[in-house]
Amino acid sequence: MTRFRFYTATTLDGFIADEHDSLDWLLDQPIDESGALNYTDFIGDIGALVMGATTYQWVLDHNESTGESWSYTQPTWVFTHRDLAPVTDDVRIVSGSPTDFRQELVDAAGKKDVWIVGGGDLAAQFAAAGMLDEVIVSIAPVTLGAGRPLFTKAYDLELREFDRNKAFLCARYDVVGPRPTR
Amino acid sequence: MTRFRFYTATTLDGFIADEHDSLDWLLDQPIDESGALNYTDFIGDIGALVMGATTYQWVLDHNESTGESWSYTQPTWVFTHRDLAPVTDDVRIVSGSPTDFRQELVDAAGKKDVWIVGGGDLAAQFAAAGMLDEVIVSIAPVTLGAGRPLFTKAYDLELREFDRNKAFLCARYDVVGPRPTR
Repeated sequence: MTRFRFYTATTLDGFIADEHDSLDWLLDQPIDESGALNYTDFIGDIGALVMGATTYQWVLDHNESTGESWSYTQPTWVFTHRDLAPVTDDVRIVSGSPTDFRQELVDAAGKKDVWIVGGGDLAAQFAAAGMLDEVIVSIAPVTLGAGRPLFTKAYDLELREFDRNKAFLCARYDVVGPRPTR
Repeated sequence: MTRFRFYTATTLDGFIADEHDSLDWLLDQPIDESGALNYTDFIGDIGALVMGATTYQWVLDHNESTGESWSYTQPTWVFTHRDLAPVTDDVRIVSGSPTDFRQELVDAAGKKDVWIVGGGDLAAQFAAAGMLDEVIVSIAPVTLGAGRPLFTKAYDLELREFDRNKAFLCARYDVVGPRPTR
């Protein structure tokens, strides 16, 4: 069954980008690409991608600065209220709730899973819609003190797997459910 | 040589207390008191404590609600600009920079270490004063989305040790230094 998986790097203090949406703190960290919870294995299980506008724009800007082109082979849904252009035919710019797109995403993923790329608020919206099964984090040995949040809602998780990958502490969690409000 | 060590529980998204300074999310988590990076072993290495006013007040309130008395046998420095009363003779209410109290803390710790109990801003002030050697976190399988920050400055760390302790992912980091500003 298709799982919805939030796979991301984060700082120890829970930021997935700095206040300027930079990943400088991340990109200079050593990682073993065949090590624990590595991206290559992960992306092999993924049939569809979901991301927010800031993440999408970051990828486009990053590609522009490096001369790379859009590298994802999976169909991608960009959730946004902004007026953005799809960079390839495999990118759909959409607005609405995650639920509106559940069947479409599940169908697109086929026997594989859906990767919620980020940001943290979109991942939390998916969780609130009952569409988040896993949170997989690569925790960089960094604090930022401020930045873009890993997650924006109160949830209980369960630790399922962990290991070191070079500089990173990597962990996979099942999403248990929203924490009861006080 | 005396080390300055920030030992704390945190949520996966980097909060050490919720917005109401509650630890409800923490206190219902299973932990093995003789397991990885456990408190008993840690506190045995500690000769002096440092905490901020909010942490101090939390301990007092917690003790009042449970009927416990102040349990720390080590001398404790409470850094605050508030007008607080020391609960025992072993508590000193102080204001000023960490540097002003370095020698006093080192002398009090003797051959042992100084525990920076919290909060995250006080730990970051100690780091900025060059008085933070280690960050040791017990990461609860919880997100809060908002609350009291684990740390308030941008620092590089280095992962030295990690393991699971029941619900928690525990990790010990050396403090490398402040991250270069952009």
